[in-house]
Amino acid sequence: MEKPLILVTNDDGITAPGIRKLISIAKKIGEVYVVAPDSPQSAMGHAITINSTLHIEEMKLKGGAEFEWSCSGTPVDCVKIACDKILPRHPDLCISGINHGSNSSINVIYSGTMSAAVEAAIEGIPSIGFSLCDLSYHADFDAAEDFIEKIILQALKNKIQKSWVLNVNIPKLKKSKIKGIKVCRQAHAKWDEEFEVRKDPRGRDYYWLTGKFVNLDQGEDTDEWALENGYISVVPVHFDLTNHQAIGELNQWGF
Amino acid sequence: MEKPLILVTNDDGITAPGIRKLISIAKKIGEVYVVAPDSPQSAMGHAITINSTLHIEEMKLKGGAEFEWSCSGTPVDCVKIACDKILPRHPDLCISGINHGSNSSINVIYSGTMSAAVEAAIEGIPSIGFSLCDLSYHADFDAAEDFIEKIILQALKNKIQKSWVLNVNIPKLKKSKIKGIKVCRQAHAKWDEEFEVRKDPRGRDYYWLTGKFVNLDQGEDTDEWALENGYISVVPVHFDLTNHQAIGELNQWGF
Repeated sequence: MEKPLILVTNDDGITAPGIRKLISIAKKIGEVYVVAPDSPQSAMGHAITINSTLHIEEMKLKGGAEFEWSCSGTPVDCVKIACDKILPRHPDLCISGINHGSNSSINVIYSGTMSAAVEAAIEGIPSIGFSLCDLSYHADFDAAEDFIEKIILQALKNKIQKSWVLNVNIPKLKKSKIKGIKVCRQAHAKWDEEFEVRKDPRGRDYYWLTGKFVNLDQGEDTDEWALENGYISVVPVHFDLTNHQAIGELNQWGF
Repeated sequence: MEKPLILVTNDDGITAPGIRKLISIAKKIGEVYVVAPDSPQSAMGHAITINSTLHIEEMKLKGGAEFEWSCSGTPVDCVKIACDKILPRHPDLCISGINHGSNSSINVIYSGTMSAAVEAAIEGIPSIGFSLCDLSYHADFDAAEDFIEKIILQALKNKIQKSWVLNVNIPKLKKSKIKGIKVCRQAHAKWDEEFEVRKDPRGRDYYWLTGKFVNLDQGEDTDEWALENGYISVVPVHFDLTNHQAIGELNQWGF
């Protein structure tokens, strides 16, 4: 049987330890093409490059995949240019990450890692974004390895639907402390902004975006609950943003 | 009764004709604060600025609002800094646009205009994004004026829920040709990428993102159908990206 074709991308850049680990896992399972940003692109959301140009560059990295390309654009640009210019055929799966830091609950919407995965699904490529809840560059990705491999194999075995996206977050725990994998919904949460104001050398104010994460959701079926309780969370995500439940009420406004 | 406090933003930049029209409409209805990008930020999606700093600048523009600020960041940054540093109290409504170009169907996910509206809802501010299906800088926004005012007034009168976002798209038609307003769902559509390759002066390839819009959805309850048939489309949008329908099937994978 032909090996599955797997597209690997991320938002931390092609040399980040998280994607290097994900590539090593993917190579055990399939034929791997890597198309990832040439520089960090965290929090780029679903941005695409329309007012500027893109460069791509074939790369060889030690222990990497046979086919690796860096791209000067955003994570979503990487998926788009991979589909149009790099991949030899429609891939069986796209995997994105392993992100350095959580993409649970509302973070999914700011995340370049998850937006790349969502873009793949828009292109008809089922996809999985992986994130480790540890922002450190030198985070320990080893504990997550077997779980990630298992989730990828399950997705392929169960013929994951073309439009599906899974948002997988892994708690910062030793392997022996991880209790298992839980299917969840996205917790209702937000960031409370606290912009830090400073003075530049010419006396002008400038701002750094900082904030405090606030979980507004007490449910025990959420990704935040799962992570706080030692589980890996898996949230199915989709690109239909319609609030279907609101349609009835909205029709009564009488436009 | 106190006038409603309305936050106005966009992604085409604070001087774009679309937002100037929206400000003039908002001034008829409420107390208006404008916080918008100092330069075009189309297709920035839900990007935020975390690796760089932000500047804001109070502005006075002829015929504008009493309080206007430009911001060096993305549309989502504008909403965040408005909430934390500029607005005198929690606003009653955020309106974003009028975007120069369609944000119907899948475009909602790439759109800075709509991402700003979604961010407002995350902050607990109900919001409406307006887009005119005409990319031209000199598009005629007059035909849309009465409809936009009506939709804003309906939202306030019906006490639009704090977490609600409406995606309003207006066809490029004379006012007399617009048949009315239709509540819709997001059509299933995508862009087929066609990257255009060129050679730079040093002989290196570079790429421009271009593409062809493909509507994959035959439904007559979609925004694409409404727009093609002369209606203004209103799609309720939300920031819970969970594919709730997939949870049951995913639980059967047996993680």
